[in-house]
Amino acid sequence: MNLTKQHIQDDNKKHLDAHYNSYNHLADALTKKGHNLELILKQLSDFQVAIPSWALGAGGTRFGRFSFYGEPSSLEQKIDDIGILHSLTQTAGAVSLHIPWDIPSDYQAIKEKADHLNIKFDAVNSNTFQDQTNAKESYKFGSLSNTSKAVRDQAIQHNLDVIKIGNELGSKALTVWLADGSSFPGQNNFQTAFQYTQDSLIEIYKGLPKDWNLLIEYKPYEPNFYSTVIQDWGASLMLANGCGDKAYTLVDLGHHLPNTNIEQIVAILQLKGKLGGFHFNDSKYGDDDLTVGSIKPYALFLIFNELVYGMENNPQNPDLAWMIDASHNIKDPLEDLIQSLEAIQEAYAKALLVDQTALKNAQLDNDVVKCQELLQEAYRTDVRPLLAEARLQTGGAISPINSYRSLSVRDLLIKERGKNTLATGL
Amino acid sequence: MNLTKQHIQDDNKKHLDAHYNSYNHLADALTKKGHNLELILKQLSDFQVAIPSWALGAGGTRFGRFSFYGEPSSLEQKIDDIGILHSLTQTAGAVSLHIPWDIPSDYQAIKEKADHLNIKFDAVNSNTFQDQTNAKESYKFGSLSNTSKAVRDQAIQHNLDVIKIGNELGSKALTVWLADGSSFPGQNNFQTAFQYTQDSLIEIYKGLPKDWNLLIEYKPYEPNFYSTVIQDWGASLMLANGCGDKAYTLVDLGHHLPNTNIEQIVAILQLKGKLGGFHFNDSKYGDDDLTVGSIKPYALFLIFNELVYGMENNPQNPDLAWMIDASHNIKDPLEDLIQSLEAIQEAYAKALLVDQTALKNAQLDNDVVKCQELLQEAYRTDVRPLLAEARLQTGGAISPINSYRSLSVRDLLIKERGKNTLATGL
Amino acid sequence: MNLTKQHIQDDNKKHLDAHYNSYNHLADALTKKGHNLELILKQLSDFQVAIPSWALGAGGTRFGRFSFYGEPSSLEQKIDDIGILHSLTQTAGAVSLHIPWDIPSDYQAIKEKADHLNIKFDAVNSNTFQDQTNAKESYKFGSLSNTSKAVRDQAIQHNLDVIKIGNELGSKALTVWLADGSSFPGQNNFQTAFQYTQDSLIEIYKGLPKDWNLLIEYKPYEPNFYSTVIQDWGASLMLANGCGDKAYTLVDLGHHLPNTNIEQIVAILQLKGKLGGFHFNDSKYGDDDLTVGSIKPYALFLIFNELVYGMENNPQNPDLAWMIDASHNIKDPLEDLIQSLEAIQEAYAKALLVDQTALKNAQLDNDVVKCQELLQEAYRTDVRPLLAEARLQTGGAISPINSYRSLSVRDLLIKERGKNTLATGL
Amino acid sequence: MNLTKQHIQDDNKKHLDAHYNSYNHLADALTKKGHNLELILKQLSDFQVAIPSWALGAGGTRFGRFSFYGEPSSLEQKIDDIGILHSLTQTAGAVSLHIPWDIPSDYQAIKEKADHLNIKFDAVNSNTFQDQTNAKESYKFGSLSNTSKAVRDQAIQHNLDVIKIGNELGSKALTVWLADGSSFPGQNNFQTAFQYTQDSLIEIYKGLPKDWNLLIEYKPYEPNFYSTVIQDWGASLMLANGCGDKAYTLVDLGHHLPNTNIEQIVAILQLKGKLGGFHFNDSKYGDDDLTVGSIKPYALFLIFNELVYGMENNPQNPDLAWMIDASHNIKDPLEDLIQSLEAIQEAYAKALLVDQTALKNAQLDNDVVKCQELLQEAYRTDVRPLLAEARLQTGGAISPINSYRSLSVRDLLIKERGKNTLATGL
Repeated sequence: MNLTKQHIQDDNKKHLDAHYNSYNHLADALTKKGHNLELILKQLSDFQVAIPSWALGAGGTRFGRFSFYGEPSSLEQKIDDIGILHSLTQTAGAVSLHIPWDIPSDYQAIKEKADHLNIKFDAVNSNTFQDQTNAKESYKFGSLSNTSKAVRDQAIQHNLDVIKIGNELGSKALTVWLADGSSFPGQNNFQTAFQYTQDSLIEIYKGLPKDWNLLIEYKPYEPNFYSTVIQDWGASLMLANGCGDKAYTLVDLGHHLPNTNIEQIVAILQLKGKLGGFHFNDSKYGDDDLTVGSIKPYALFLIFNELVYGMENNPQNPDLAWMIDASHNIKDPLEDLIQSLEAIQEAYAKALLVDQTALKNAQLDNDVVKCQELLQEAYRTDVRPLLAEARLQTGGAISPINSYRSLSVRDLLIKERGKNTLATGL
Repeated sequence: MNLTKQHIQDDNKKHLDAHYNSYNHLADALTKKGHNLELILKQLSDFQVAIPSWALGAGGTRFGRFSFYGEPSSLEQKIDDIGILHSLTQTAGAVSLHIPWDIPSDYQAIKEKADHLNIKFDAVNSNTFQDQTNAKESYKFGSLSNTSKAVRDQAIQHNLDVIKIGNELGSKALTVWLADGSSFPGQNNFQTAFQYTQDSLIEIYKGLPKDWNLLIEYKPYEPNFYSTVIQDWGASLMLANGCGDKAYTLVDLGHHLPNTNIEQIVAILQLKGKLGGFHFNDSKYGDDDLTVGSIKPYALFLIFNELVYGMENNPQNPDLAWMIDASHNIKDPLEDLIQSLEAIQEAYAKALLVDQTALKNAQLDNDVVKCQELLQEAYRTDVRPLLAEARLQTGGAISPINSYRSLSVRDLLIKERGKNTLATGL
Repeated sequence: MNLTKQHIQDDNKKHLDAHYNSYNHLADALTKKGHNLELILKQLSDFQVAIPSWALGAGGTRFGRFSFYGEPSSLEQKIDDIGILHSLTQTAGAVSLHIPWDIPSDYQAIKEKADHLNIKFDAVNSNTFQDQTNAKESYKFGSLSNTSKAVRDQAIQHNLDVIKIGNELGSKALTVWLADGSSFPGQNNFQTAFQYTQDSLIEIYKGLPKDWNLLIEYKPYEPNFYSTVIQDWGASLMLANGCGDKAYTLVDLGHHLPNTNIEQIVAILQLKGKLGGFHFNDSKYGDDDLTVGSIKPYALFLIFNELVYGMENNPQNPDLAWMIDASHNIKDPLEDLIQSLEAIQEAYAKALLVDQTALKNAQLDNDVVKCQELLQEAYRTDVRPLLAEARLQTGGAISPINSYRSLSVRDLLIKERGKNTLATGL
Repeated sequence: MNLTKQHIQDDNKKHLDAHYNSYNHLADALTKKGHNLELILKQLSDFQVAIPSWALGAGGTRFGRFSFYGEPSSLEQKIDDIGILHSLTQTAGAVSLHIPWDIPSDYQAIKEKADHLNIKFDAVNSNTFQDQTNAKESYKFGSLSNTSKAVRDQAIQHNLDVIKIGNELGSKALTVWLADGSSFPGQNNFQTAFQYTQDSLIEIYKGLPKDWNLLIEYKPYEPNFYSTVIQDWGASLMLANGCGDKAYTLVDLGHHLPNTNIEQIVAILQLKGKLGGFHFNDSKYGDDDLTVGSIKPYALFLIFNELVYGMENNPQNPDLAWMIDASHNIKDPLEDLIQSLEAIQEAYAKALLVDQTALKNAQLDNDVVKCQELLQEAYRTDVRPLLAEARLQTGGAISPINSYRSLSVRDLLIKERGKNTLATGL
């Protein structure tokens, strides 16, 4: 389907008065406090988050999967879906491919489609946690860390292949999420597994084009339930350091033990110039992959507070690869992503409102009460008019979720694609 | 010190213009959406939270305690402090005594002082987790659950004494928090300990005046580190049911295992007419006793969403005993309590803004996206002008924390009391 | 395949000398301490654990599944597998069917086969967490708690159907594990969902044959990631009480929040006569479904210590329905189950060795050190010769895992069934 | 009091027959399996664990403290207590001083006493988490990470003073546990706090004598409840690397988030040659400081399995500083320590029994079942006769806890010291 600027502009009309009423009041208040509205709006507009190619279909749990109507059944349709998201939100200007789920059949066509929709190809993702049909070696007992050289070689080659695919499309980074680990004490030799992983990553690193980065994800558990080779940021950083300057740690919000202070991890990685990417989602129990901001929005704000600080004070880091990594079991995936994108922009906007100078001074005075007041002052501000204005100025929807519904996007997709399509990948 | 309405009114003057500017804009927007501002303001004004008598001094951890200047060193001074809080916030109209830390020496004088400051005596709290000097029996191995009848009898008698003290002051409820449990497997017979606890509580219950309630707190661990006799709401409810109609479960936000869904517990207890009280604080790891709303404000909002629903739909519950149960290690305790009270009112106000009818309909439609939108619509609203207006209308401060500082309250208290005073109790 | 007593007896021969050497030494030491070896051996032999029909194939995670060779592809073959387990261990004398995965096509034949292998039909399990092909209503938004009466009715009817199937086979209990809940705040009305669940369970309860029990499982999260209707034992017990005397709580080891003291839950349920069943597995992070005893064997012992106490002191409970509820991702499922059965028997045997009288006295003396010594005395005893002797006396293998391998059971199954079979169900 | 070898030898007599009966049977079985008993006994005898000087008195929680009779009230008496422990267990041949709690008044006398009791001075511990009377600067808002240079300098100087004290006594390492962190979001600038900590540690590192090591402890929370500067092993390692070759990470069992795989951390640190010390305790919920092995003995075994592997395969690490870091709230501290020492030796002995060659082969074969069997084979062995024999051969007690009681050690201490003494320090 074709969601034109005109469609959105027409739908915006009914919200315009209310929007300007709110926006003007907020802009006035923020300007009085010394904020530069123009700059903030530009920062919001510039902030683009990649959508992973597998996120457009309904995900599932090990207990089953409930499908959704009108799922995209080809890479082309997935990019169409991202185009719709981007048109509405002006925030989803990138796609992150998962290989082998989404190998393009016609590179040129895919690139043109993406280009036309103003969508960039962000980091590409390899997959060595599942066996592919006809694969020679199995990843049942690990991939890059496997005790068998043949398996490790196959996994290394797969990553090199993924780089090649990404390179043709304009990607500049490879993200490695390694499920390798063990489910029972004794199954793995921790030291050997770590050493093999390091060696394998170095091989992959050698295959990186000059202007590429390697992003190494960590996760404490699942799908292995006793140990994971790259269990935390410390392990990831050690491996990245072992590879070289272009290897970085990637933080996924859901990949932490209960109660972890994630914002501190983000801050220290930035201090060391080693934060390379960030995957958004939310969770209450484990790697629940819920809509961003649906469970712990204040924690997300605190993380963005560090990210904003780092983007301003730590030029030693690369441009971060931002991606949504959530799973959509019971919502329309597109609506879910719209809600995630809104929550990301909200947290970012609030973090931009933190008075960093006053905060620094309160910290120097050990005025803990004041420090809290300053963060809460920013967090409690209702920034929705700011987000709407940023979208409006770049041709997006004042209220993306409402426009998505009033423009009957899902119905049109079903009409186009049929009801019981099935998204490729998970 | 004497913090008069005039002081506050004078201090409010400098904030008045900005306040009305914000408030009018918000009131206008909310009214358009169908909200009854007058009613909401009344609900906010009516909502009063008890301050525990021990909360006015600096708390500590097992690793030490850093004292604060000008701490109250008598019950009279503690009530003075609550008077200051109430003058500023108009939300702290009650005190919750901890016995034996705060046994009044002159009941009449204390009552008059409290009455003068418009402070009620809320639930009284017993203490059987520490040994008192000259106590005949020790609580080292438990109190109400102790295998020794003499110890149980002493603990029962203490609770009966606490009721007597509370009764003279006008309290209407006894809160029992039982630290009893074990730190090592095998130490306790779970069944016997539970049975003794039930028997002891029944004895205490029998001593309740007719119009009193018994509130039974639960906690999974600390100060015992293997088991706690009343480890969760299920155990508390079972014991309350074993006592009778006037026995209820009391929920303390910090007394749960990691990731517990507390709002669901609140809802089910309300459904059964068995929620009797609520202790506010916040935490990231365990029973951290941090300022309310400083870590997980959205979770607090979700809990208030249930509380508001219950107050409207579950008349089978008593009026809840609300109390702040936090510890002030590194903040001025009064400033900390002001921040907590603000966070409580904020969560309450946002919960009052939830469109319950629309939510119910969205739930019936299984429109999960819409359900989330409705909660976030309320939560994202900046309700601070509402809180300020509610305070303003009842003689409080537009911005309590700013007024507390600009009126130099702590300095005046230090001048009055001296620097190195020490609060009684913990 | 046919694993005869003779096969096992022959294989035992090579272990006999070593076994008697160990056993005699242990028996001597235990007898000196006052233990009744004959009784203990009988208790071990009497202890039978059900194998769920889906446990004979390789399970998986949401990230994929690695299959195993020679999986059973029919209910008949599954019961054959359990027959093998039982022959070797003499502990797996029951099967627990999951419907609709394992509806018998020929009841008489299945019953005869099971009877021939000395296998009973234990509790039957319903499944309302997945949609079946051609089902009229979907469980995407819940089953027994669904806001739609049609969905609830379908789910109730399914449970009644399961009872009917179980009844034909000789089962005496229905286990209900309810995945119902919500993944996002606001999605569910907690009170309504709970009330509907209660009403639905009462309908099912009414359909129970006279000599049947209803077992209600609880679980804090997964596959729903914000709330689960029956989130803990308190909720399960409340629902069981709402149904009647034949409704009980069922405890699954993996269904608890981090750090939960499960043994205390077991003890209190027994005290109240409301523990109806128990599902074994082990875990480090969540509901990991690992081999029993592979991660926290001491916790398992502590739980058995309560179970043994309850079986002796709480006649108000029914005979418990014991079942293994683990998932076999990377082990041969039969070997995995043998390891689980061994760990269960080990924990049980150690619990039987606890000197209950001495423990009671030490508890009365508050001699915490002694209490710990008494539990550790039992736990540190190497009870493997006891388990072997119990098996030997009833025709089982001295070392089941070794016999399984030396008798080449898996190879024979592959020869019989082919390599790439796929177990029905999950 | 003077606990002579003769006392112990006399008490051993009554256990000798039973001991040899068990030991000979076990030795026989282990020898048949190829174990070198002489070597194992030597390894057990060589394994010595330091007792911290504060561990001889009863600890407490923030909710109070129940004292114990006959506590040591001077450093001399503390070393006497360790002497008793060492006589009985032959495993407690070291003391770890905490400064300023235990500054010797007469160095020569203390050294002679320790020497006489065969006790070495292990790592010394600084304390910058409490304010000392008359200290110029306060650690309320941190020490080595404080924003104030004066505070940092005071904390650095304290550490240098501690080194000096340790050096006079023969210690060879300084352990730094830093409580620094924040209890509220915004209170700290994570990057600045980390950088200051690094700088301060470098200053301390410069003051190390040539043959000393610096051991850097980590902990996720408590006494700060939002963030801790050195929150995990990754942060500790980064800081150690920033100091130099003689700086190492120290692992305390209780200082981890729920469900952390500690054995993997131990393994990776050893691989990198950066594990410097280890603090023993046990816990169910947080840093509970319970008796070693009282809650999760299998986890302790798994950690020892890695330690044994590392001691054999990773010569790049220093000799580890082993210490018990537990708190004795409700047990006689000496009995508690005896139980801890027994549990440590038990785990070590079992780890020594793991067939490393077979394990390696099973890992290469991905024979997960076999890997588990091999670990469980070692773990299920009752090694108590081995520990007793190792003690017996070096003059210790066959059963330390029984001898402690039958020799009435505590009564004699009370007679000597009086009942209501109070241990210095916490």
